[in-house]
Amino acid sequence: MGGEVKVSRRETVFKEISPSEFFYRNRDLAGFSNPSRALYSATRELVENALDACEAAYILPDIFVRITSADLDGTLPDPKPYLLKVQDNGPGIEPKYVPDAFARIFFGSKFQLKQSRGMFGMGATMAILYGQVTTNKPVSVTTSVDGEKAYSFEMMVNIRDNTPLVLNKSVKPALGKTGISVQLTLEGDYSRAGSKIQEYFKQTALVTPYANILFIDPNGRLFFYERVTEKMPKPAKETLPHPLGIDLEALRRLLRESKESNLKKFLSKNFHRVGDRIAEDFLRYAGLDPDAKPQDLTNDEIIRFGSALHSYDGFLPPDSGCLSPLGEELLAAGIEKELQPEFITVVQRPPSAYSGFPFIVEIGLAYGGKNVEPGVKLLRFANRIPLLYDEANDVSWKVVNEEIDWKRYKIPQDAP
Amino acid sequence: MGGEVKVSRRETVFKEISPSEFFYRNRDLAGFSNPSRALYSATRELVENALDACEAAYILPDIFVRITSADLDGTLPDPKPYLLKVQDNGPGIEPKYVPDAFARIFFGSKFQLKQSRGMFGMGATMAILYGQVTTNKPVSVTTSVDGEKAYSFEMMVNIRDNTPLVLNKSVKPALGKTGISVQLTLEGDYSRAGSKIQEYFKQTALVTPYANILFIDPNGRLFFYERVTEKMPKPAKETLPHPLGIDLEALRRLLRESKESNLKKFLSKNFHRVGDRIAEDFLRYAGLDPDAKPQDLTNDEIIRFGSALHSYDGFLPPDSGCLSPLGEELLAAGIEKELQPEFITVVQRPPSAYSGFPFIVEIGLAYGGKNVEPGVKLLRFANRIPLLYDEANDVSWKVVNEEIDWKRYKIPQDAP
Repeated sequence: MGGEVKVSRRETVFKEISPSEFFYRNRDLAGFSNPSRALYSATRELVENALDACEAAYILPDIFVRITSADLDGTLPDPKPYLLKVQDNGPGIEPKYVPDAFARIFFGSKFQLKQSRGMFGMGATMAILYGQVTTNKPVSVTTSVDGEKAYSFEMMVNIRDNTPLVLNKSVKPALGKTGISVQLTLEGDYSRAGSKIQEYFKQTALVTPYANILFIDPNGRLFFYERVTEKMPKPAKETLPHPLGIDLEALRRLLRESKESNLKKFLSKNFHRVGDRIAEDFLRYAGLDPDAKPQDLTNDEIIRFGSALHSYDGFLPPDSGCLSPLGEELLAAGIEKELQPEFITVVQRPPSAYSGFPFIVEIGLAYGGKNVEPGVKLLRFANRIPLLYDEANDVSWKVVNEEIDWKRYKIPQDAP
Repeated sequence: MGGEVKVSRRETVFKEISPSEFFYRNRDLAGFSNPSRALYSATRELVENALDACEAAYILPDIFVRITSADLDGTLPDPKPYLLKVQDNGPGIEPKYVPDAFARIFFGSKFQLKQSRGMFGMGATMAILYGQVTTNKPVSVTTSVDGEKAYSFEMMVNIRDNTPLVLNKSVKPALGKTGISVQLTLEGDYSRAGSKIQEYFKQTALVTPYANILFIDPNGRLFFYERVTEKMPKPAKETLPHPLGIDLEALRRLLRESKESNLKKFLSKNFHRVGDRIAEDFLRYAGLDPDAKPQDLTNDEIIRFGSALHSYDGFLPPDSGCLSPLGEELLAAGIEKELQPEFITVVQRPPSAYSGFPFIVEIGLAYGGKNVEPGVKLLRFANRIPLLYDEANDVSWKVVNEEIDWKRYKIPQDAP
């Protein structure tokens, strides 16, 4: 509490921090707020990357996951350092991309409009960064794209500069196996996170009946989710944005970079399910000249264009061609295999869009049998991502909980 | 659902995105998920910056806030574009810093260990970015540091590169007034956000009885929170980190960059409330040589050092010298002025630390009087930030809800 009030004229100190530095300081934003949550998030992010890699290449996934206490006899109390290893049989990634893809925030393969799992394309790097700041240990990544040579990298993140720091690099024979293996050390709390991690594997197994997933936990318990079908959903494709989901920034970029000579062509080349007829009708509705050059629109015209995109009701709903739902047959197979209920019903909803991202919700209901708790078990998946209880930062979670009126489906929103 | 399973060997496409691009795509992470939430967040972020600027310079704050419908007669239904203006009488910032400070993510003045309000130091830029992508309008920022010249900038964010784009710059007489004025256009929903924005002003007025805050809402309603005291809390100071809150990354940086010749000096120069005696005792406990060079520690020694920092119980609790609590007198004055209850009691807790950040919780209880609802009204503030209901991303919120056992204070955690 001061006496005399005086005005100070010290100059404010400004500085810039790197993306890694930002997420190092705010790691809770990305799901790494404490050792329990971090162990769960790290496991989940690496497993989803592994499944995405296999599915994008149409390879039946064999995923191996192991969590081990870093102390030799495992007797230290939680929280403590754990080793987390996740290995897949996907196509691998070219060795030259490994340092940036794993040890650099905002560098990745998921920054496109295509269905994939995972969190904003930065989950693996967040896991590595969290491991580093809590244990000071490097991550080890091994990749093989040809099954002949396997390249291993020991790396840390140079957090201040957001650059990878390769400590060691080696090559050995891949013995015919392609794919990626990641091993990192991080502070975790398996006694708290264990049941949630197990539940995640169980739900994931439900939607990947075409995968073998082997998980060994720190207590030596072995969880094996076995492949029951060799049918896989077809890979997701990159897609054009749906006109209803486009914001003014995206519209401005498309217009400025357009190679089309007029607005009518611009619309039909750049948007999902917009053909000549709809383009003409829309431009009439918006009061825009079909022959105007896309590059020449003024700011005010862009604003009018954008408002009209949101209010025009003649656009077609997204089609599912770019999406990769599981399908009713595979979902039923997954539920049958994991729960063996007396009664199963599965439903696939029509595709919809959220902020330009198309998605499909699939729902399974199971009832009866010794593995299902009393009452109806409701399972919900958006773009094949299981919707667990507190994944509130997940795009799919938002889709399902904010955008869908569950009551319309006669399902109360707080159903299990 | 595919027939024959074939393995594709297409190379994965990698790319890097800028920090602005990331938060443009994931704006919900920073509290800008929809027009209602965005209008609230933008208002709050700009007001907190304004208060921080005044308080850091020990200037009695005069804050002016106005939200207006961007359509002339205000008859369009929500959500729709709004003009948001926030003006302060703080010290202003040097014109040369304005473009980066406002239109560049991860550039700011709040990336230091010092008490301030606001969200991760990027709130204003997020508000500007959200305004731009929803309305395609530039932000206007005016600053004067000397009361003679006022510099105005019209800017947009070049989102792909995370660089400021100055559209227009002008100078006019400042007429004796220093400070910053920000005006932006953003899509908002005042019919939904209004009550929450009003509640935020009310709570803020409680902890700033030394400020004049004038808020004019889109319906022309005027809310004036008048200054009732000229006493201000002393400005917060930058502080050394508390040893209990330090992680291995921070420890490694401090060691590598240390100018001290031995570990004993290293400890007493770099940590909050660690003197020679505690430094010696700690190093004995950790089994580290007091004469070792800080720069020469091996990775394993750093790990041992870090574990010992967390398990050693001889460190002193943080002192409040670096903090800027309101104080019991000012808190009581604020509650009296806003609520006029029959009964007030206020308590200041001892300082504590969360992830190396020191904080002080202050609590006020009000009872009776025509402005207090039946029952006891509980008001909680951490480092002078009011704890509203869903500020779950706020550092203070986490401090108060995850780290403090409210039952110890005989207050149930779900108290209003």
